[in-house]
Amino acid sequence: MRALLTGFEPFDGATVNPSWEAVRLVAEAPPVQLTVHAVQLPCVFGEATERLREAILEHEPEVVVCVGQAGGRHAVTVERVAINLDDARIPDNAGAQPIDQPIVPGGPAAYFATLPVKACVAAARKAGIPASLSHTAGTFVCNHVFYGLMHLIATEFPELRGGFVHVPYAPQQVLDHGEPSMPVQLVAEALTAIVTAALLLHDDLRLVGGAIH
Amino acid sequence: MRALLTGFEPFDGATVNPSWEAVRLVAEAPPVQLTVHAVQLPCVFGEATERLREAILEHEPEVVVCVGQAGGRHAVTVERVAINLDDARIPDNAGAQPIDQPIVPGGPAAYFATLPVKACVAAARKAGIPASLSHTAGTFVCNHVFYGLMHLIATEFPELRGGFVHVPYAPQQVLDHGEPSMPVQLVAEALTAIVTAALLLHDDLRLVGGAIH
Amino acid sequence: MRALLTGFEPFDGATVNPSWEAVRLVAEAPPVQLTVHAVQLPCVFGEATERLREAILEHEPEVVVCVGQAGGRHAVTVERVAINLDDARIPDNAGAQPIDQPIVPGGPAAYFATLPVKACVAAARKAGIPASLSHTAGTFVCNHVFYGLMHLIATEFPELRGGFVHVPYAPQQVLDHGEPSMPVQLVAEALTAIVTAALLLHDDLRLVGGAIH
Amino acid sequence: MRALLTGFEPFDGATVNPSWEAVRLVAEAPPVQLTVHAVQLPCVFGEATERLREAILEHEPEVVVCVGQAGGRHAVTVERVAINLDDARIPDNAGAQPIDQPIVPGGPAAYFATLPVKACVAAARKAGIPASLSHTAGTFVCNHVFYGLMHLIATEFPELRGGFVHVPYAPQQVLDHGEPSMPVQLVAEALTAIVTAALLLHDDLRLVGGAIH
Repeated sequence: MRALLTGFEPFDGATVNPSWEAVRLVAEAPPVQLTVHAVQLPCVFGEATERLREAILEHEPEVVVCVGQAGGRHAVTVERVAINLDDARIPDNAGAQPIDQPIVPGGPAAYFATLPVKACVAAARKAGIPASLSHTAGTFVCNHVFYGLMHLIATEFPELRGGFVHVPYAPQQVLDHGEPSMPVQLVAEALTAIVTAALLLHDDLRLVGGAIH
Repeated sequence: MRALLTGFEPFDGATVNPSWEAVRLVAEAPPVQLTVHAVQLPCVFGEATERLREAILEHEPEVVVCVGQAGGRHAVTVERVAINLDDARIPDNAGAQPIDQPIVPGGPAAYFATLPVKACVAAARKAGIPASLSHTAGTFVCNHVFYGLMHLIATEFPELRGGFVHVPYAPQQVLDHGEPSMPVQLVAEALTAIVTAALLLHDDLRLVGGAIH
Repeated sequence: MRALLTGFEPFDGATVNPSWEAVRLVAEAPPVQLTVHAVQLPCVFGEATERLREAILEHEPEVVVCVGQAGGRHAVTVERVAINLDDARIPDNAGAQPIDQPIVPGGPAAYFATLPVKACVAAARKAGIPASLSHTAGTFVCNHVFYGLMHLIATEFPELRGGFVHVPYAPQQVLDHGEPSMPVQLVAEALTAIVTAALLLHDDLRLVGGAIH
Repeated sequence: MRALLTGFEPFDGATVNPSWEAVRLVAEAPPVQLTVHAVQLPCVFGEATERLREAILEHEPEVVVCVGQAGGRHAVTVERVAINLDDARIPDNAGAQPIDQPIVPGGPAAYFATLPVKACVAAARKAGIPASLSHTAGTFVCNHVFYGLMHLIATEFPELRGGFVHVPYAPQQVLDHGEPSMPVQLVAEALTAIVTAALLLHDDLRLVGGAIH
């Protein structure tokens, strides 16, 4: 079985992006009997999705998990839904800052992840890593790529399943910031558990896990 | 011009719901030249949307703003998107606790609010109340009603415009809890500014306001 | 009975300080049979305590409650202890930025407030305002004045009782900041309840209220 | 050079206490040329300090660093001051729940740590672990032991230097809690850096690091 994991290059002036560091670790030591390809995406609207499409064509995975940094979150969060909206609070790495534009004009308002999201959360926790569901991936390049992935699946790769995972800052990013962090090695263990669950399970677990608001 | 505002009854053992208290205050002292109808919705899946539909038929508003409590948030938050998912962490007031069910089987994955959401946020801030956009209304009855409203607009009331606003706890709900709150009177002032902006403006402002994640 | 309340002038580039706004409101409408004097202190190490001493000599209060802004806190917090340390993260309004210096060389490491702090918290909550104890007033001008007050009591005004209260941002300070706030009028109601409890009660209530850490 | 590190047994129903797990790791792999003794303290008022005194007599350290869990904090925090107050929000492991009692009747209101606290914070950060100063160790057994340590130093062991460090939850304690955590191995690396700095440096660094409130 074959999975594609993507992480992002650093953005907003940072020198590291824990999503890429963790994804690379997973690919270096993949779970037994699984093949994991790691690809870095640029933090650039449009171009990131093109690079993702090329990687899907090249690696022909069964599952794609795109991973991005969510600075300020405590846990590894499995995203449930991508929305058809680019609304950038800061410019991307190419200087673009779209405001209130659809990602795919005429496309569906949203796509749900087609991974077993609650099973993925449960697998990460079972591996000892704090994890939870998230119901928003924001409106920046992470959501853009997540929506782009699900749109590619809907329009070009109907057999493929996919989703998105947001990860905390690495400790060295917040040495004196007063924000939560998680070591990249721990994030990689969570991603390993998640990608394994995603490959092995097609139906999600029926667990309580929604959000009041 | 005529607006319908809805608030919820108390839930989860509470004795008050600030959404209803604030909505009632707005209707008691509406902005000049605007008519505001206030209707309380039950915190019950299904039934809440039916009651909302009846209120739309009765009052024939141009704009509907449904309002709910988001305990733990600091600011009045204007929701941007409703998703087609019921996933209840706790039972509703009738004891139902749906898990991972579509609100409308076969319906769109999501609807965006058709209010000028950034103009609504700007109007609340101009009135002196902390406000921001939100990109998730959760997966409980609030999101259920928000999705239900937008689906009613899409299928029955094409002239109607609508959206959802989440409000903080009232102070008396968190006297010793260590959670943020906002007086109901202040929430009502924010809602007055929001409903006025929603009635007067059809196009949103082009402002930076997205979320990185 | 006679109380002195002090608030601070704005600092760190702000144009308003909710501590002074709220203190002024209390003095304008004091509780029945109580006299409340309001005095504004400069946000300046040394000078603030001198101004406080002059105000004590002028007004001869039975109780002094100094009040300051604690941006980021949700609730009105009654401080329990002042420590003999100036350690400024930012310059004061006169440009001084002491680092790791005792406020009173050779003075005690700390003074406890001599107000009935748990009764003060209970009184604020009874008046409907979220309130709690705090065990640190920081190391900036607030703690400096609190320590200075308690040192004046210990050395010059043995009959006087005193303490310190930290208050949240006012809403207009955080319109778009994502930080909690409390309207100045509500803060004033809390201070009224606190100063009344402080004047009327000499012994504290025996309530659970400590901090695990 | 010889240091004594103490951690606590689990409390409040937990099955693990990361302070003890981390302290044990440090002692198992101490820094070159340093001797580190690890001792577990009971989470019991009074008894914990007695056990600490015995350990000091037994190991004759130059530096003592007591370590405790501060659930909810993001970073390793070096405590600056211990106050003469027991005020328990929950019972200790022997069922005692003192309220508003002095730890040492007639003792000083507080003791400052005699470690180079800012150098300790800087050392932890240099080792790659988020760290900061804290100005309150609470009013439970952690503060009790910290005060007890400093009182022992003041009255019995004048050559000894000492302080207290609070550490975050371990990941497995908060798998689904929405609270920050830090792996015990990372905490141990921070403690190694801190105890090394504490042993080698007698004077603190003059760094900006205070708290506004």
